Amino acid sequence: MVSLADYSDVVRAEVKQVREVVAGLHEQLLQWGLVVWTAGNVSQRLRSADLMVIKPSGVRYEFLTPQSMVVTDLQGHVVDGEQEPSSDTASHAYIYRHMPDVFGVVHTHSTYATAWAAAGRQIPCALTMMGDEFGGPVPVGPFRLIGSEAIGRGVVETLARYPKSPAVLMRNHGPFTVGGDAESAVKAAAMTEEVARTVWAAEQLGGAVEIAQKDIDSLNDRYQNVYGQH
Amino acid sequence: MVSLADYSDVVRAEVKQVREVVAGLHEQLLQWGLVVWTAGNVSQRLRSADLMVIKPSGVRYEFLTPQSMVVTDLQGHVVDGEQEPSSDTASHAYIYRHMPDVFGVVHTHSTYATAWAAAGRQIPCALTMMGDEFGGPVPVGPFRLIGSEAIGRGVVETLARYPKSPAVLMRNHGPFTVGGDAESAVKAAAMTEEVARTVWAAEQLGGAVEIAQKDIDSLNDRYQNVYGQH
Amino acid sequence: MVSLADYSDVVRAEVKQVREVVAGLHEQLLQWGLVVWTAGNVSQRLRSADLMVIKPSGVRYEFLTPQSMVVTDLQGHVVDGEQEPSSDTASHAYIYRHMPDVFGVVHTHSTYATAWAAAGRQIPCALTMMGDEFGGPVPVGPFRLIGSEAIGRGVVETLARYPKSPAVLMRNHGPFTVGGDAESAVKAAAMTEEVARTVWAAEQLGGAVEIAQKDIDSLNDRYQNVYGQH
Amino acid sequence: MVSLADYSDVVRAEVKQVREVVAGLHEQLLQWGLVVWTAGNVSQRLRSADLMVIKPSGVRYEFLTPQSMVVTDLQGHVVDGEQEPSSDTASHAYIYRHMPDVFGVVHTHSTYATAWAAAGRQIPCALTMMGDEFGGPVPVGPFRLIGSEAIGRGVVETLARYPKSPAVLMRNHGPFTVGGDAESAVKAAAMTEEVARTVWAAEQLGGAVEIAQKDIDSLNDRYQNVYGQH
Repeated sequence: MVSLADYSDVVRAEVKQVREVVAGLHEQLLQWGLVVWTAGNVSQRLRSADLMVIKPSGVRYEFLTPQSMVVTDLQGHVVDGEQEPSSDTASHAYIYRHMPDVFGVVHTHSTYATAWAAAGRQIPCALTMMGDEFGGPVPVGPFRLIGSEAIGRGVVETLARYPKSPAVLMRNHGPFTVGGDAESAVKAAAMTEEVARTVWAAEQLGGAVEIAQKDIDSLNDRYQNVYGQH
Repeated sequence: MVSLADYSDVVRAEVKQVREVVAGLHEQLLQWGLVVWTAGNVSQRLRSADLMVIKPSGVRYEFLTPQSMVVTDLQGHVVDGEQEPSSDTASHAYIYRHMPDVFGVVHTHSTYATAWAAAGRQIPCALTMMGDEFGGPVPVGPFRLIGSEAIGRGVVETLARYPKSPAVLMRNHGPFTVGGDAESAVKAAAMTEEVARTVWAAEQLGGAVEIAQKDIDSLNDRYQNVYGQH
Repeated sequence: MVSLADYSDVVRAEVKQVREVVAGLHEQLLQWGLVVWTAGNVSQRLRSADLMVIKPSGVRYEFLTPQSMVVTDLQGHVVDGEQEPSSDTASHAYIYRHMPDVFGVVHTHSTYATAWAAAGRQIPCALTMMGDEFGGPVPVGPFRLIGSEAIGRGVVETLARYPKSPAVLMRNHGPFTVGGDAESAVKAAAMTEEVARTVWAAEQLGGAVEIAQKDIDSLNDRYQNVYGQH
Repeated sequence: MVSLADYSDVVRAEVKQVREVVAGLHEQLLQWGLVVWTAGNVSQRLRSADLMVIKPSGVRYEFLTPQSMVVTDLQGHVVDGEQEPSSDTASHAYIYRHMPDVFGVVHTHSTYATAWAAAGRQIPCALTMMGDEFGGPVPVGPFRLIGSEAIGRGVVETLARYPKSPAVLMRNHGPFTVGGDAESAVKAAAMTEEVARTVWAAEQLGGAVEIAQKDIDSLNDRYQNVYGQH
């Protein structure tokens, strides 16, 4: 079996740093109210090798440390770590193998995003924030059983049809988000829940009013190319 | 009257340890927003004797300590402790006497689970997380007055008809959950509230879509037999 | 003008102790999510003199200290304190003058209790917790302008018709609660919001099912006479 | 390019003090649950020069410090600061140029206020708290794209028609609030979200009952002229 000792110093140094990043981002899931008990997981793919760092399975958040994070290859086989990796590991690995620009993946069961998923409805684009972040509606992916890479396939197939969206609501399950690193994917998870909750509340007031497509395109173009520190 | 001094060192050591566990788990009830003021209680049955450790009655959470927890026998008679035990003690005791695999019981009035109970509706199984944890809908139990073992009887009778569910929503009252220890029952209480809230929100979007029974069975089988560290 | 120096040592000692109690209970309003910014106020009547201690007007919660609390007589005239008392002072004073068993009064604009008040609907008694604490529905009081004792009169007149309830929802305004001391009134405020939220959520599931009156009476009798440490 | 060194000691001292105020008020946005991730921004106009202090663009809340705040002139040009100012800077500047009594501006995407904005509905005046703070309904402003002063123009035009309201709900976007300083604008943001949530919840109970205009006027007159410490 391959172990971390078979990798270079550079890789081992990146593993150490990414373990800290991924452990720290699980605290952000808690801070923004995206997870309960052990639900939800974050991973980040390495730049220096075809490896990823992911949460261990079924461990309570207060017991997560950088060292408890699990390192696997992009087939989901464990390379380093004392615990079993998340039961969503095969799906994270599938996403990394098929979306070469993605280096961070997050899965939660955050309440309102999951409610849209349970109702089988996409979130209509009724907020300028959605134009910015998602470039349109937040799409719904297919129903899939847990424990194989079938969920990852559903994520990849859905995002191929919605290339501007960093999020997909897996039917009867919950949101998966992707990004250029794990922090971007966590931000997308927080934004997905926020727009899910806001548009849900608008629906109870008689209905959210969708934004015209040309305005969505203007918002998305500015945000992806101008916003932030650069 | 029997006192803790009549028990062996082994039993007294387990009492000390379980008092710490049960006191600590009341903090988890607060952390996940399952209780307000003094509502809600956790108990755990001992392995070394027919005793249980339970929250005192009507005491605010910030004043709960391991030593303030009350030890009773499985008829609900106090064996050790300076305060009155929870007014639900007889029901906890009834559950332990009639469900020999159960070593933890939790009762809350968590908002959304109690809302389903007040509407007299079971929570339909519309989430993969429910397939995992509950193996179907979360059932509703009968209306019962407080203060006798009548509530415990209602819990046991309902769970006999829903053997995969660790939770029952007592009509007009709130959820009771059971587990192999108190932590498992607290986890079930947190999950019950989370699925209650999520499916409630899906109902406001036009209705939660239930999962097919064969898929529920697949999810439950995998989760109960494969998930977590083992 | 009368000042605290005109009172006995016993009274001055009770003022000091009650200032600490009332300041501390404002933190409980925050902990249970009952207030935003400066909204909401707590008072407690003294046992040793016809005086009360109440929150100053328009001061942010993080700046409240025991010493910032204002002492007034039961007409609402300031006896000690450097700041203006709450604009609800005349109403608190009216309640104490007309309800001799009440020694604590709390007013909040907690979200769901105030929503029922804005809809002009009483909260139907659909929870065993409501049978315990309120002995029936939580009643709605009349619309009243702010700044005089008119609100206090509305509270007293409504509670005369609902003598088992410690809470009244003032129409288009928010809840007032009373108790044997300020802590009991704060507990009633927390419980009012919790049942308001839970029954509100049940209404969205098709309707909360009310409990039969004879069962409400049984619950209330047991809770008021048996529950808690005694 | 103009720099802060071109200004007097008095101005530089006010910049230092306002940077601390504005940075500290971003924590209040978090405390009252008005923002997620980097959304939302606070600014304050100086008294000693035609300058304002505003949040940098796209920076997470835990990394905001007084020194990271950006100083711009009232055209939105940067005068001091190492980072890009908020992408809403031109709109804040427009508001200050056209509303000479306004010295604080806040923008959030707080959930329920934004839900009313997404549904294109003003919040009806159904709470005495709204009579106090808003003197009527909370109005809806026009749809505007992000990144120019167009949003600021929409805010100014809407508030000209609702001169008692410190808040406007920009359609499909979120609330902007104004005040005599940044703290007043943050208070208005917190109150806007609270009344948005409460009236939203009342709408789900069959409808919020609006207050008669003469009563709204009485409430607003008393509150604006009598309330608080003075």
